[in-house]
Amino acid sequence: MKQSYVTHLEAALDGTRYPARQVQTVHEGRPLWVRYDLPAVKAAVSRDDLAHRPHDLWRYRELLPVDDDAAITSLGESMTPLLACPRLGAAVGVPGLLIKDESSLPTGSFKARGMAMAVSMARQFGLTRLAIPTAGNAGGALAAYAARAGMEAFVFMPDDTPVVNRAEAALFGARAFLVDGLINDCGAIVREGAGPMGWFDVSTLKEPYRLEGKKTMGLELAEQLDWTLPDAILYPTGGGTGLVGMWKAFDELEALGWLEDTRRPRMYACQSTGCDPLPRAWAAGERFGQPVEAPATAASGLRVPVACGDFMVLDAVAASGGAALAAPDSEIAGMMALAAESEGISLCPEAAIALAVLRRAVSEGTIEAHERVVLFNTGAAQKYLELIDHPLPRFDKDRMDWDRIRSRGASKD
Amino acid sequence: MKQSYVTHLEAALDGTRYPARQVQTVHEGRPLWVRYDLPAVKAAVSRDDLAHRPHDLWRYRELLPVDDDAAITSLGESMTPLLACPRLGAAVGVPGLLIKDESSLPTGSFKARGMAMAVSMARQFGLTRLAIPTAGNAGGALAAYAARAGMEAFVFMPDDTPVVNRAEAALFGARAFLVDGLINDCGAIVREGAGPMGWFDVSTLKEPYRLEGKKTMGLELAEQLDWTLPDAILYPTGGGTGLVGMWKAFDELEALGWLEDTRRPRMYACQSTGCDPLPRAWAAGERFGQPVEAPATAASGLRVPVACGDFMVLDAVAASGGAALAAPDSEIAGMMALAAESEGISLCPEAAIALAVLRRAVSEGTIEAHERVVLFNTGAAQKYLELIDHPLPRFDKDRMDWDRIRSRGASKD
Repeated sequence: MKQSYVTHLEAALDGTRYPARQVQTVHEGRPLWVRYDLPAVKAAVSRDDLAHRPHDLWRYRELLPVDDDAAITSLGESMTPLLACPRLGAAVGVPGLLIKDESSLPTGSFKARGMAMAVSMARQFGLTRLAIPTAGNAGGALAAYAARAGMEAFVFMPDDTPVVNRAEAALFGARAFLVDGLINDCGAIVREGAGPMGWFDVSTLKEPYRLEGKKTMGLELAEQLDWTLPDAILYPTGGGTGLVGMWKAFDELEALGWLEDTRRPRMYACQSTGCDPLPRAWAAGERFGQPVEAPATAASGLRVPVACGDFMVLDAVAASGGAALAAPDSEIAGMMALAAESEGISLCPEAAIALAVLRRAVSEGTIEAHERVVLFNTGAAQKYLELIDHPLPRFDKDRMDWDRIRSRGASKD
Repeated sequence: MKQSYVTHLEAALDGTRYPARQVQTVHEGRPLWVRYDLPAVKAAVSRDDLAHRPHDLWRYRELLPVDDDAAITSLGESMTPLLACPRLGAAVGVPGLLIKDESSLPTGSFKARGMAMAVSMARQFGLTRLAIPTAGNAGGALAAYAARAGMEAFVFMPDDTPVVNRAEAALFGARAFLVDGLINDCGAIVREGAGPMGWFDVSTLKEPYRLEGKKTMGLELAEQLDWTLPDAILYPTGGGTGLVGMWKAFDELEALGWLEDTRRPRMYACQSTGCDPLPRAWAAGERFGQPVEAPATAASGLRVPVACGDFMVLDAVAASGGAALAAPDSEIAGMMALAAESEGISLCPEAAIALAVLRRAVSEGTIEAHERVVLFNTGAAQKYLELIDHPLPRFDKDRMDWDRIRSRGASKD
């Protein structure tokens, strides 16, 4: 393509229009939507046209913002598996549970979707120096995509960010820094540095195109379910771009007439009780969250005390008939072990929180046992080494002491 | 399917036939080939039939050994990306370099292919307790697939196995043990334990079906290259199942008449000079390797002092016009950094060794600059945390000291 179907950008707060094809950020500190000429998309492409395209997120090319194909920056963002989980589902009360496993994306997390799009757009605009505050995975993904595009990346992360995230940012040659503070403190650094350092801020929802990348989670899900949608989606929500992106995807698919059944899923935004601005705002009937004081959760991706797109998340949750709910960190280890041992699925702690929310929602009747429920695993457990208890017993090759193995010796003993 | 196209198994050493549809292991300690009724496969399926199938390794269903669909144990083995790497290619002298990036498979390595098949076959045979010696990634993959199938897994690994591998075996609930020794010592434990513990040994090439899973690397590669093959393949070789499996895949594709061009790639088996039984045997013109004394390499997957399928690797290498070559461990860090910084690709140390071999082969004229070369990245760098130098500098949010960032502070400074 030489020009995308983007018509303009639009402030989520009040609809103010901004021109496409020039660098945009926010409107009054709040995000912009990317709008497309959907009738033209509908005339240009059909669902059936997708059958012969590569199975990666670029198959939805007409619904993506990149104008020039030459700007596309890809590390192979293959469609992620949608896995039936009968044993795990039965354990939490919904045998029809499906997990959309984002851990197979480049750098092992869903952040690849947004960064593939943000870096491609930055390349199109001729930007060469990008900066980001991160809880971990977004920094690793930016570092990888910036390297792929030949750009400089500056990454700022809290000093207790998981070690694998720190390592991957370094590996990809990003200029990465630890900050004594939270992701919002890192965000302030990136904001202030824009002038002196001349970088472009690709913070989630302050850059309009990461949302378009995350949107592909919803497009893929619909296609994988033969153009229907599930009854409920459980989504671990930090900044919320993914949930908002999926809801936008469903709007666009409906406008295109691609859905066999336009019934929407109930969207559940899941957070830790240790950092729960969205459930608090939801419970209070507010559209905007208040910053959580002293947020604390081991699910590093959920440690976002307040998000600039919170009202977009809450709007989608409300429109869907869902809810913003929290579960405590004390559930993380058990839920990670349950998913790993019952299904072989490597759940990140953020998804473990969502699984705990699901179990409670089922027990309370908010979600019913017969429903088709999709839970998003936004990254691989292996990226959270600190959370996996892994002292392994030794086996003495000279003694071949089988009794010892029989009596104990399991890694979980 | 209710029955696969498998006709029999056949000793790689001397062609002795073994019946399919019962548990088989080795012949005189050496591997068995799985043989198919290829004319019947050819009559049953065409290349074009694949277009509408899911993009995972099960799309090659008729060339896989599982009889009963119900036995299939999958975690979503999506086709892995084949990435053009112009900058990295130019740096090593072959601008047309492609990397087949296996890090997107479940548990982040190519081992998922073999384990998906071995565990599916074990399930078909009613086996419920599996055991494995591992350099790391195979143990993690077995643990995940065994959990998915509801089986017990016993994993034995050297006590200096990368920490992420140890953690994932524990996470998936395997009974995992550290052994003061090498993978061959772990193999001896698994062999001896078969009686007292009643487990089935899924060691590479001692179980006939892991090879069939690895074969899909060759099938995918051919399909991704529009049913042609590259000029050369660089493959990091420990046990060698993948290289042998790809060569078998090419034989089968040729027999099916699916290749547009039957010219074969030259196969390069790549090892570390710290553990190089294949290059040694190759240089000496031998078909069987001698155990390397005191093997030492940080590329844990290559630390296999001798492999029971070594003659199969060397036969394929010889038939292809390739070679078995080694590069020193001192190249690993530089090659990992080069791939990461120039292309955003997360290369495991084994693939870094292969990249070093490639660079030398190009400089020596063994591989020419204009050739189409495919290098296999068999796993994610993130799984080898010990090999990534990642002390990150701090940035003081109260000082906003941009001069410090400008003058140094890069994670690579």
